[in-house]
Amino acid sequence: MSEFKTLRGMRDLLPEDAATMTYIGDTARKVARLYGYKEIITPVVESYELLAAKAGDEVRSRMFAFKDLGGREVALRPEFTASVARLVATTLRNEPKPFRIFCTGSTYRYDEPQRGRYREFWQSDYELIGSNRPEADAEILMATNSLMQDAGLKKFAMKTGHVGVLRAILAEEKIDEKQQNAIMQLMDKKEYDDAIRMVENAGATQKCLTTLRQLVQCRGNDIFEIINRMKELVKDYEKSVAAAENLEEILTLVTESGCKIDMSVDAGFARGLEYYTGMVFEVYVPDLDIALGGGGRYDRLVELFGGEPTPATGVAHGIDRIMLAMQAQKTVPDKEKTKTVFVVPIKDEQKTEALKIAQMLRNVGISVEVEVMGRRMSKALEDADRRKLDYAVIVGEKELKEKSVVLRDLAKRQQNTVKIEKITDAIKA
Amino acid sequence: MSEFKTLRGMRDLLPEDAATMTYIGDTARKVARLYGYKEIITPVVESYELLAAKAGDEVRSRMFAFKDLGGREVALRPEFTASVARLVATTLRNEPKPFRIFCTGSTYRYDEPQRGRYREFWQSDYELIGSNRPEADAEILMATNSLMQDAGLKKFAMKTGHVGVLRAILAEEKIDEKQQNAIMQLMDKKEYDDAIRMVENAGATQKCLTTLRQLVQCRGNDIFEIINRMKELVKDYEKSVAAAENLEEILTLVTESGCKIDMSVDAGFARGLEYYTGMVFEVYVPDLDIALGGGGRYDRLVELFGGEPTPATGVAHGIDRIMLAMQAQKTVPDKEKTKTVFVVPIKDEQKTEALKIAQMLRNVGISVEVEVMGRRMSKALEDADRRKLDYAVIVGEKELKEKSVVLRDLAKRQQNTVKIEKITDAIKA
Repeated sequence: MSEFKTLRGMRDLLPEDAATMTYIGDTARKVARLYGYKEIITPVVESYELLAAKAGDEVRSRMFAFKDLGGREVALRPEFTASVARLVATTLRNEPKPFRIFCTGSTYRYDEPQRGRYREFWQSDYELIGSNRPEADAEILMATNSLMQDAGLKKFAMKTGHVGVLRAILAEEKIDEKQQNAIMQLMDKKEYDDAIRMVENAGATQKCLTTLRQLVQCRGNDIFEIINRMKELVKDYEKSVAAAENLEEILTLVTESGCKIDMSVDAGFARGLEYYTGMVFEVYVPDLDIALGGGGRYDRLVELFGGEPTPATGVAHGIDRIMLAMQAQKTVPDKEKTKTVFVVPIKDEQKTEALKIAQMLRNVGISVEVEVMGRRMSKALEDADRRKLDYAVIVGEKELKEKSVVLRDLAKRQQNTVKIEKITDAIKA
Repeated sequence: MSEFKTLRGMRDLLPEDAATMTYIGDTARKVARLYGYKEIITPVVESYELLAAKAGDEVRSRMFAFKDLGGREVALRPEFTASVARLVATTLRNEPKPFRIFCTGSTYRYDEPQRGRYREFWQSDYELIGSNRPEADAEILMATNSLMQDAGLKKFAMKTGHVGVLRAILAEEKIDEKQQNAIMQLMDKKEYDDAIRMVENAGATQKCLTTLRQLVQCRGNDIFEIINRMKELVKDYEKSVAAAENLEEILTLVTESGCKIDMSVDAGFARGLEYYTGMVFEVYVPDLDIALGGGGRYDRLVELFGGEPTPATGVAHGIDRIMLAMQAQKTVPDKEKTKTVFVVPIKDEQKTEALKIAQMLRNVGISVEVEVMGRRMSKALEDADRRKLDYAVIVGEKELKEKSVVLRDLAKRQQNTVKIEKITDAIKA
């Protein structure tokens, strides 16, 4: 047995899983097209400085970072948004707004491996660049809903919030951005007591602490009711009220346009990445304790990377996590089942003819395996049975003289002699 | 302007190129299916030891290698074959042979960037595991030909050879494997004089040196004629003759089965990777000085990685290089052109209705962009013109009362009022 294996937290995906991953990736691409998102490809390896800039301490400390052979500090991307923002700040800086970007590929974080959390994982990303309006955020929610539905998920929910509600309060209390980030990280981990203690230590007023304690408990499925309660709680913080109203407008657009999503609002909801400035959300499956995707508005990121001030909103979907959810829900990828044919020459003298027939069948879209082991016919057919192939085409000297072969239906265990030119019809019938 | 950029040798692919890359990847996947190859996904990051084991000094010295946060020596894969061999030696070790594997993704080498050579590049890989017979090698050549043809390349050629011819001579002369590898690397770079000098320094006979000098000049398009000359040149080396006969049998199967490939044979042809043991080949475009793909037989690799002795043959295709060749040959990806529609509310009050109509059109497969900038109608339509969208759906209060919208054909600059339920028909007509 080999001593070689995959690294801890990395994995091989065998054909069944790989087919599901491809199916989800293709679905993400199809939905991107339906919503006008254009695909781009950015590198897996980027400068450490770029990827670390606004990632948040949590993500930053878990990046695959190293020096390349030229001594550059580089890292494997932990997500796509920094690369997209770089592109928007450079190559695409003169592109008229809005534009919509789709990307998909592998991403890397040195996390402790657990169910649904690997060190290599795959994301699909929709980014809507240039609009600061609620319909842009609504579109990101709706496109995400389309992807989850089209992938065949029967049950999923979205948790929404708005980082502006909390940040406006903290800003009003003169808590600097660095401390705000640390507080939001604790909020993200639902460590509300620690978060509020940090606010207290930063010298916040009692009114602020009381408001925060009430806010972090303000959540539920009756979304407009919850938002009203939020607005009431933060009524002395003008910018917080505006943030709550922005969330209200976004969710109104989504629900009134007929998009049926199982949604909740959580006033204490923050996300691990520092760059969010507005609406944030996560998709999850109630029975699985993992997020299938998430995103939100990041209006300052492009500017921080040296570009023009550019409002933006987006989402990343976890492709391998969607696969987990599909498997948990026993959702089968909606793929056409195509016939597979096994072509076997009886003797070596018929090898060339077997290859010709295989090619003829492939030309009409039939999947063909050719016998390449030189096995006896019975052995070869046994193997084809085990592989659950549909038909065997047996190429023998006698039949070839009549321009024919033996076509065997492997499931029915029936066989007939058919003209070579008729094989395709016989298989399709 | 931003100071952030892609790393040297890395690049962003914008929508046009990204679409071509996706097209080639999908074509590789389609051809894989037609030939019975099942997709697997292996990690980009593997143990350095695995990737370095049989890569050859050249590739080994240019790997993106580093220590991960756990202190493990790891590297980014420079190609797929080591990962596939690992999988065959471990997880798949009890899988009945033969089996066929397809994989695709990004690969990494720290090469000096130049046309067609980047530090991040994309490959598609077909590996046929378990057969030592010429029809297996023939299949790899034929599947590669199918991929190049289906991608739409009008002009490409294959150079073939057999490392067994040269290695059998060197082995007969008692040159050890390490030296053989160094000699083959020089051969690969067409540094024949240096290669033969190294053979001389290793103490080879004059007969051997004479044979090698003649062999490295033995190449051409009259493939069976060249193979006969090879056999004549190496007639005193029994295993070399057998190797030449093996190549002859493979190429006979390919040509006689009707597969029209522009082929040549080169007796001095070696490839940069150490693990090849039999037939080797490369696909190239005569006008571009880059290989589009290459591969060959590697019968000992799985064993070297701790698996059972397992014959195997395979090929890697350079997806971004195929794109370069398509662009040079002005080959346009064969994609269906779908209609794109721009949906614009006249006022904010029609935003919800606009989103509803957008969703209705997406449900029948139409690509829709919604106005998310709140622009005046004339501005928005100007932008839609610039983006070369096909139709605009203008959603206004007056028409909505009649359950209608204004449908504008952007190319013809004509517009009509149509019932909402008839938009789809009007667009498709």
